[in-house]
Formats: sequence, C-alpha cells, structure tokens
Amino acid sequence: MAKKTAISPTRAENYPDWYQEVIKAADLAENSPVRGCMIVKPWGYAIWERIQAILDGMLKATGHVNAYFPVLIPLHFMEKEAQHVEGFAKECAVVTHHRLTVDENGKLRPDGLLEEPYIIRPTSETVIGDAFSRWVQSYRDLPLLVNQWANVMRWELRPRLFLRTSEFLWQEGHTAHATPEEALEETLKVLDLYTDLAAKNLAIPVIKGTKTPRERFPGAVETYSIEAMMQDGRALQSGTSHFLGQNFAKAMDVSFQNQEGQQQFVWTTSWGVSTRLIGGLIMTHSDDNGLVLPPKLAPTQIILLPISRDPEQKAEVMAYSDRLLQELRELSYEGESLRVELDASDRRGGEKVWHQIKRGVPVRVEIGPKEVEADSVFVGRRDKEPQDRVTWPRAEFVQRASEMLAEIQGSLLTRARTFQQENTAIIDSLDDFKEFFAQTHDDTLVTGGGFGMAHWNDAAEGHEILAQLKVTPRCVPLDGDQDPGECIFTGKPSKQRIVFAKAY
Amino acid sequence: MAKKTAISPTRAENYPDWYQEVIKAADLAENSPVRGCMIVKPWGYAIWERIQAILDGMLKATGHVNAYFPVLIPLHFMEKEAQHVEGFAKECAVVTHHRLTVDENGKLRPDGLLEEPYIIRPTSETVIGDAFSRWVQSYRDLPLLVNQWANVMRWELRPRLFLRTSEFLWQEGHTAHATPEEALEETLKVLDLYTDLAAKNLAIPVIKGTKTPRERFPGAVETYSIEAMMQDGRALQSGTSHFLGQNFAKAMDVSFQNQEGQQQFVWTTSWGVSTRLIGGLIMTHSDDNGLVLPPKLAPTQIILLPISRDPEQKAEVMAYSDRLLQELRELSYEGESLRVELDASDRRGGEKVWHQIKRGVPVRVEIGPKEVEADSVFVGRRDKEPQDRVTWPRAEFVQRASEMLAEIQGSLLTRARTFQQENTAIIDSLDDFKEFFAQTHDDTLVTGGGFGMAHWNDAAEGHEILAQLKVTPRCVPLDGDQDPGECIFTGKPSKQRIVFAKAY
Repeated sequence: MAKKTAISPTRAENYPDWYQEVIKAADLAENSPVRGCMIVKPWGYAIWERIQAILDGMLKATGHVNAYFPVLIPLHFMEKEAQHVEGFAKECAVVTHHRLTVDENGKLRPDGLLEEPYIIRPTSETVIGDAFSRWVQSYRDLPLLVNQWANVMRWELRPRLFLRTSEFLWQEGHTAHATPEEALEETLKVLDLYTDLAAKNLAIPVIKGTKTPRERFPGAVETYSIEAMMQDGRALQSGTSHFLGQNFAKAMDVSFQNQEGQQQFVWTTSWGVSTRLIGGLIMTHSDDNGLVLPPKLAPTQIILLPISRDPEQKAEVMAYSDRLLQELRELSYEGESLRVELDASDRRGGEKVWHQIKRGVPVRVEIGPKEVEADSVFVGRRDKEPQDRVTWPRAEFVQRASEMLAEIQGSLLTRARTFQQENTAIIDSLDDFKEFFAQTHDDTLVTGGGFGMAHWNDAAEGHEILAQLKVTPRCVPLDGDQDPGECIFTGKPSKQRIVFAKAY
Repeated sequence: MAKKTAISPTRAENYPDWYQEVIKAADLAENSPVRGCMIVKPWGYAIWERIQAILDGMLKATGHVNAYFPVLIPLHFMEKEAQHVEGFAKECAVVTHHRLTVDENGKLRPDGLLEEPYIIRPTSETVIGDAFSRWVQSYRDLPLLVNQWANVMRWELRPRLFLRTSEFLWQEGHTAHATPEEALEETLKVLDLYTDLAAKNLAIPVIKGTKTPRERFPGAVETYSIEAMMQDGRALQSGTSHFLGQNFAKAMDVSFQNQEGQQQFVWTTSWGVSTRLIGGLIMTHSDDNGLVLPPKLAPTQIILLPISRDPEQKAEVMAYSDRLLQELRELSYEGESLRVELDASDRRGGEKVWHQIKRGVPVRVEIGPKEVEADSVFVGRRDKEPQDRVTWPRAEFVQRASEMLAEIQGSLLTRARTFQQENTAIIDSLDDFKEFFAQTHDDTLVTGGGFGMAHWNDAAEGHEILAQLKVTPRCVPLDGDQDPGECIFTGKPSKQRIVFAKAY
C-alpha cells in the first residue's frame, strides 16, 4: 500500500512535477506574468537572505568589498569581447526607448528612441571592466576585490523556478590582479568558499573541478565549478569561478604601471552563485512530504505549535509556549541566537504540524494541555519521519536544542553525501556508459543513474555520443586521482577520469 | 585670509560643485557611461548597507517580510491606473527585444521583437498588486506586509549623484489591509520609522507631513513625506509613505471576502526610501573638508593611523596599534561591536589623516613613537576642526570610546537641528515670502534662505507665483500648530501654515 505523502506526485512518480509541488507547498516562489521571471515569495526570500548573510560574511572576511554597477550595458561594450557577446547575444533583454506615449488608439507605445540600445546585464564583466579601467593606474591599486549583489537577466524560453529563470538574483565577484598567479589563486580561493557555503551550510556535498573547454564561461581562460548531485541523479552546477586571463583587461583596457615602471594589462577573475542554489537545496534534501531545510539555512529553526481546542486550556498552553519561546531565543547555534517562532494561528493541530513539515522547519515542538501538565514538549525532527516524534522533559529539550540542530545539519549532509557516493560509478567502457545513463530517467521518472566517472580526451566523436545521450562532461575533479587511462569514446590517452552526468 | 580646505570649491563658493567634490574626495560614487546611472563605489555602498541593515531591522520588527518581484512590468499593467501611467510614462526605460544579432555591417542590433514591450520598474505597485490579487482571498490573508529591496529606473535627463539618477537602489513596501483605518495606520507607522531612521540614525532632523494634492504620488489618495533641510537651505524629500486607498486594488483586482462573507477590495499602502538618503547625509553634515559621517552610519567608526618614518620604530608603532585595534573591537556601541580599522598603508602621516577626514570617519587615532612611549593616543573627532586634536592616555581613551561616538552622533543631530531652526521663518506676507526666497541662492551660491512657514489654500494664483520663484509646497506638517489664518497668495482662509522651500 502506498504511504500517504504531503506532496503529490512523489519523487518516484514524477520528479519534475514533485519539484514544482514542493515549491508550491512551501510557498517559496511562483511564476509571474513576466515571461520567465519568478516572484520569490517571503519564505523563499528569507532563505536567500540566509545564503546572502553567510556568503557575504565569508567574502568580507577575505578582503572583498561590495559595490553597485549599472543594470544597463551599452551595446558597444558587448562588442569588445567576441566570445562573450557570442555567448550571451541570444538571451539579452534589450532597452531601445526611454519613454512611453499614448498612440492614436489610446494605447501605450514605446517612444524616445535611444541613440544606442542598452541590454539588461546578463553579467557585468564589461561594465565593471570599464570602471576598473578608470580605477586602476598603478600596482598600488591592485588587487581590486569587488563584489556585487544584483539582479541579472538572461532571456529564458523554458524557465523553471530557481533553476532557470529569465531574471535571477546573484552575487558576482570581479577582481583584478598584477599577476596571473595571484588571479588564479583568487579563482581557487573563491571556489573553496563556494564549496564551504554548499557543504558546511547548505549541506550539499559538491565536486570541485575545471570545466572542459566547450563548457567554459564565454571569454574565460579557465572555468571552475562546483557540481552537486540532485536526487534524480542529475548534476546541478551550483557555482562558478572564472580565471579570465587578460581577455577582459584587453577588451576594456584595464592596465597598470608595474613596480618596474612598465605598463601592463591586469589579470582578472569573476565568480558567482545565484538563487539557483535554492533549487539545489530543494532537490538535495526535500522528500515526499515537502521541503527539508538544513538548520543553518532555515529562517526558522524551531517552530512552537501550541495546540488546544478548549478555550480555558488554550490560555495556559499559550503562556507555556510563550515562556518556552523566550527561553529558546536566549540560546545560540553557530554563534547566532536560535531562530524560534510560534504559530499562534487558529489552525487546527494537524494542519499546523503539516504546514511546518511542508515548509521544511528543522524542529517542530507540539505543545498541548498534556505537555503543559507534564512540563514536557512533543518534538518532531524534519530529518525523520513525520510520525516519529519524541516526548522530552522541557528543561532537557532546552538543554539539547542547539545540539539537536547540529545533529540535523550533520545528518542531512551525511545523507546527501551517501546518496552521491552510491550513485557515482566508475565506468570503463562505452557500453557501460550508455547503460548507466540509459537507465537514469525518461524526464519524468527517476530510476537510478548519477555521476559517471570515465576517461575522456575531448574529441569530436565523444561529443556526438554525449549529445545523443543528453549527457555532458560536468568537470575535471580537482581532487580526483591522477590515474591515466584511455578515453572510453576514442581510446586515446586520458590523464584522469572526469565527471559525466545529465544536468540541469 | 581664506582658510585652507580639503574641498574646493567650498560650500559658500559653489554649493553644487562642492557636493560633487565631497563625493569624489570620499570615493562614494561616480557617473557611469550609462546615461544617468551611477556606480556606487565601495565606501558609498558600505553606507547604503548600514542604512539597509538598520531599516530592515525596523521593518522586520514591525511584522514586514521581504520578497522579490520581477524587474520588468508588462505595458498593459501600466495602463490600468490612469494617474500612475501619466506620472511615469515620460521616464520609462522600455524593453522591446529579447536578443541581439549581428547585422550585415558586423554591428550588433536588437532582434526578437517582443509581442508586448516591458518597462523596467520605476516602482512596483502594479506588478506587486497583480501578485496580491492571487495571494489575497479572504480576510484571513490580511494584512499583507511586504517589502522589497531593489533597483528601479526612472529615466533622468539631468542626473546628480545620489539625488537624482536614472537607476537607483531603494526599498519599496507594499501592504494590503481589510479597512482604510488599518491602511492609514500602516502609512503613518512607516512614516514614523522613516523619521527615526533619519533623526536617530542619520542624524537628519526631518519634518513629517502630508503632500499637497499636486505633489502626490501618481495614484495615491494621500502622500506623506519627511522633508529635510540641506545646508544650502533647500529641502530634500527623504522618504515617502502613500495611502493608496482602493485605487490600485481596483486597478489590479485585489479583493477579499470579509468576515461577513462579502467581497471587497483591499486598501493598500506603499512607501520607500532610496540611495537619495546618502545625498541627504552628505548635504546635512559634510563641511569644507569633506564627508562627515554620524557614527551609527559610519562603516568605520574609529580609524587607527600608525605613523612612523623610522623602520625600527615602525614595528613598535604597528604592534601597539594592533593591540589597540583588538582592544577597541571588543567594545560595543548601540548593541554592535565597534567598527574599527587600521590604515597600515605606506602613506605619509598627513596624507593618512586627510584621507580619513575626507572619508568622514568619526574618530581618528594617530599613533606615533611618542604615543607608544607615553602609552597614549592622539585623537581627532570629525565633528571638530582638523587641528583640534587631543592626547589621551590609551586606557582612558578605550574607556571613553563608545561614549565619544555617542557624543558625536548627538552633536551632529543638534547642529543640524539648530541649522534647520535658524533657517526656518514664519512668513505672513507675499513680499516677505518673495524676499525670503529671492535671497536663497542663484543655483551656485548659498546666501541664506530655508523653510518658509506660511498660510496657503492651494489656489491657482499661488501656484503661478511659486513656479516663478522655483519654490514648492513641501508638506503640511503633521506636528504643526493648528493656527488658522489667511493664504498669503490669495487671502483665502487656511487651516495651518505649511512648509515652503526650494527643493532638490
């Protein structure tokens, strides 16, 4: 008999629809009437604010400063870097007019044609590079370590909430350095910050690596990424860090006088993570009852649920809950006060509980007349089954609360790591490769699959087969074993195995 | 003999140019190659982050939640509220295409014409109203208290950094309520938050009031604002809070079933403050030596300046400074750790000191071999003259540091309040009114003027004279005396004096 679940369809029944339903049930976001653009609803935005706070702290602690650059980019800026414009031309929102007028039929139409059109930034290498060309004169002005929190736009014909939207929110770092070594060091330093953000905070284990040449950012010399495995076995590129060499420095004329008095172009990097991470968070941890949030990311870590039908008892239950709320808020976890809320709504008990399960709150504390009398609490953890609840003496629960959050944070990472390992295969022949990815899914059903680790030498034949299988090389792992072998597509020599997967 | 100043021209010589030079000397922002759009540089952005943190905390503490809505607005949304579109049509950036293509001459041009153009949001009443129409069904869904931190665009032909730029950053609150009383209460509650933000944090005294009908937000029933006086006597509208009645509810069809089971339109509000506040901050406190920051807003509250030419002494001075840095960082002011930095650069002493004066850091601590030997510090306060520095025993300075910041915060507010009072006149005749504003300034020179408090009944004759004088009614003060009188322009009855000023 099928278990009753809060989300329908389940992951096994229809993974893409499950994803949409989790978002809806947790009230995270919705599609807007603007093509491909989403509305990030308060609960979803609160998660984004947590990601921002954590990463912003990391970036500031490593010497980066925030700034803000124009949302519009002049067309002639885009023309300066050939690969860059080629990479983004097909998805640019173009501003051509600067006012509206009412036409003869009483309808609004664009007016005030601009001499030069602008595009809404798909990314800001050009406009920030142009600013750097003014800011950098001498080696004393370097390194320049700038970050921006902003909205960007890449026109999207097949949008999916958080994963692929025309407008999304992100941070984009842009740095300039006096030497290629320093720039490369920066690129890798940020990749490590992203890895910590993912693993230690979002509880998403990731593989760090370099992108193969065809998968590079348009204009980059080398692109690094972190790749995570979703529960359908697909890969989600969760953050990228680019070593741009002198490509943008030359395009935007960013040069400096070095210590020897010579004029040189700077070496730059750029890197970003976006609201896509929320998609990764959902698809890594959530289950058939809805969202599951790691405590470090949860806007509410503990929710108190006073439950009582009797009006007299209600006042007692509420007073007891209020005292507990104050008590818990004085505790801390990871250097911050516990984020505890109380659901004082008139919803019925079961409704209250399921509402919080679907929203992914890590710890639920049910409080009824029985608990008040026994000075206890009835506690459910989101990393366990909904019915698996435990009665704790109140004092003991308070004493254990922070520890419980740490346990949940740890258990989610362990579970995700185990899943990733169990669904990663060493593959040594093309037949095995095809079989591994054939069984993955038919776009609605999850039936296995994951990361295939195989040798590869980037030849054309390989790309053709991959295109047929809808599989892409995800990255060349930085921490991978250096075990030379033969490319499974061509038999040519390969230095190490790389990660293949179907991807979002 | 003229005193030497760090900023040239001085306020008295040329106020608008002084303003630009203060921004440049403090490295707050610069014009970009994108028409009317500014680049907010790291020091300027750090001030914006302080404003955000303070106001965001206030808004959350009063039950508001953040969310994010699309940057683009479909044209047909704008058509739904007649006054609204009339108010913004002339300054809309219009997106008409969704990709770029290379034409026969090898130049990029817009391609992929959209079926319906979009505008970049000048404000989000329509797109948020559309979302509210889906979110609100019953009285149980109300009130809805939503805020958004975002960029907006209003095409600007005569831009001025921070004060008037095509793109600016702001927060916009949008709320929906079941009754007009509740909506009005919300409008005024936020006006009070803005007043506290300005007076208690930015040290800018403001006058709260209602806008006269012609100055209302397009589509509002009533617009409230806070008005501040700049050092040239002009008014800066520093924040607005609008009671929108049911105008947008009807336009965007936001209705609910009330407790009696009847279908009703909601009552809405909207309110915002923007990066314009930074312009207000500059023009309220800065002097002829550059920016002056109130401690609550200063990204760095205390700067340590180790100064030594001798390499051997340098190590000692640096070690002493480092210890002091750690000691000061353990202190707190207004519930937060002191924000203390150390300028370890190779700049010479005088250069270091003037750099920090121009950036507006509230407290400068110079440390040389003499101070190390005496276990003392040489302290300058930004609210005093640059040469007015005092030697303190180190321990005593540490003990007094937080108090000193509170004193500076207080002295800036007192000074600004005194200036405002001294430049506010009760005016009872049209001749006096003309004389008061004639002497104000000729757009470059400050020679007096300020706020004129006069009776007014909003008749056409008055508006003509005001247009000639380039004076506008700023607001009808909420806290003003209810002393009936006669309009100085028409002699008709007036309920109370209102504030007139030249304005930014």
